Amino acid sequence: MKVTILGNNSALPAFGRNPTSQIVSVYGEYLLMDCGEATQIQMQRHGIRWRKLEHIFISHMHGDHYFGLVGLINSMSLLGRVAPLHVYGPAPLQGIIQTTLDLADTELSYPFFFYPLPEGSDVLVETDTFKVTCFPTEHRIPCHGFLVESKTRGRKILPAQCRDKEIPRYFYDKLKKGEDYVRKDGKVVKNEEVTTEGPRPKKYAFCADTLSTDSFIEYIRGADTIYHESTYLHAEVEKATVRYHSTSVQAAELAKKAGVTQLLLGHYSSKYRDVVPFRQEARAIFPNTQTTVEGMTYDV
Amino acid sequence: MKVTILGNNSALPAFGRNPTSQIVSVYGEYLLMDCGEATQIQMQRHGIRWRKLEHIFISHMHGDHYFGLVGLINSMSLLGRVAPLHVYGPAPLQGIIQTTLDLADTELSYPFFFYPLPEGSDVLVETDTFKVTCFPTEHRIPCHGFLVESKTRGRKILPAQCRDKEIPRYFYDKLKKGEDYVRKDGKVVKNEEVTTEGPRPKKYAFCADTLSTDSFIEYIRGADTIYHESTYLHAEVEKATVRYHSTSVQAAELAKKAGVTQLLLGHYSSKYRDVVPFRQEARAIFPNTQTTVEGMTYDV
Repeated sequence: MKVTILGNNSALPAFGRNPTSQIVSVYGEYLLMDCGEATQIQMQRHGIRWRKLEHIFISHMHGDHYFGLVGLINSMSLLGRVAPLHVYGPAPLQGIIQTTLDLADTELSYPFFFYPLPEGSDVLVETDTFKVTCFPTEHRIPCHGFLVESKTRGRKILPAQCRDKEIPRYFYDKLKKGEDYVRKDGKVVKNEEVTTEGPRPKKYAFCADTLSTDSFIEYIRGADTIYHESTYLHAEVEKATVRYHSTSVQAAELAKKAGVTQLLLGHYSSKYRDVVPFRQEARAIFPNTQTTVEGMTYDV
Repeated sequence: MKVTILGNNSALPAFGRNPTSQIVSVYGEYLLMDCGEATQIQMQRHGIRWRKLEHIFISHMHGDHYFGLVGLINSMSLLGRVAPLHVYGPAPLQGIIQTTLDLADTELSYPFFFYPLPEGSDVLVETDTFKVTCFPTEHRIPCHGFLVESKTRGRKILPAQCRDKEIPRYFYDKLKKGEDYVRKDGKVVKNEEVTTEGPRPKKYAFCADTLSTDSFIEYIRGADTIYHESTYLHAEVEKATVRYHSTSVQAAELAKKAGVTQLLLGHYSSKYRDVVPFRQEARAIFPNTQTTVEGMTYDV
């Protein structure tokens, strides 16, 4: 699982940084977390192909988290998208999307599904390869974070060994599930001879906008990576609290308490040109911290 | 009067080109014509200061002409704008702006006024220095172009000559209006001795999205500069017509027929990487044609 940052600034675009948007890639499939203004332009710039995108998650109704959504929805239609698109977001977003499309006299080229977020937590989508759960954060208006869990795809095939043991391709799916292969002559090829352990399932949490709180810690506990906002450096902790935002130090403290492996910071206030101090403050508490950079991809 | 192009692509952003947006500068005051996605980012990039902006004009309800509007409105509020903002656009736009702000629980820091466009033509705003009139174009949904006329500011003061003739500053406004100055000793300073002819009023027409038509030619007749869409090269004239758009050749023919001085082309389809052929086609009919480039400023 990987995360590509398309926008990591807070509401005001500044210093070339865009509002919130990121792509979570799970076994090559894209999930879009928030869709601030210019997300479609950022996708083009960073080579993110919309054909791999079927699920979009919007955390809350502040414009810097969704003003790029209808433009992206519309552009994919102009480009002749056929595959369904699934959008998960606050209930009122559906009306905005529909009204905007209606006023433009636009009929989408593809099936479009909208799923309103619940008040609390719920599984939003589950496939063979991933599961996404939403959880409430604490912001000025209702807001949700999203937990993405990849699933194991079973054991990893060793192709050379399989050929050597003359195992037919159709049996590979069973090998992935751990089965041994019985040859026509009755000889058994042990599964461990031709496979190794597959990649471990991963957990990534996009914590959206939130003031510093433990209220959602159970959802992110033990995650491989979390993205937590750090709108301000810790000197501005009072301002952060009043505005329902967090500081670098608060994000690091939560990462430590939740026992995660890696912390990604973002949602920087436009008052900061240089974001290195965010990393310095956070690393003093939680060493495995990255200050995200737009266009960069981070392993979960 | 000058025009700075912030976005000149059609609906799909492509090759680094953004959706429609342009700044008309009249005696240093900014008028924004359309506000496609990422306009606020383009304003930052090209040094357009929002403090000089009090009037925004939206041509129609296709997203590539207004998806950047609420973001810009909101950002100016976050930055503590105090001066009133006036937005002129299709009536349903008001509801979208209000709903979006309400859902974000946003109260603007400044007085905001919305003026719905009429069905036909009307003067939208008139000040001491300019007048803006809307006129209907022919598009798939209701659409308006905007005619900006600057007013004369009177004769141009020659400061050295004024000092030489000992004319006090308070009299300068009267000099601009053409009056002679009578000195205390009764001697008359003829106006022509201390002024020259002021800049001539200018006419600029932003023709928005439209198929090729003469229906609004009376509004743009004799303009110094018009911006006319050329979504397609002329080889695609049938596609242009079906989609209520124009070609480079059609734009040039209208410019010629309307007796304008300069033609600016834009709203290029995302299928064209190179826009030089638009200029070549148009110049064969109307030589004083420019293919606009984002970030460039054109004298009207």
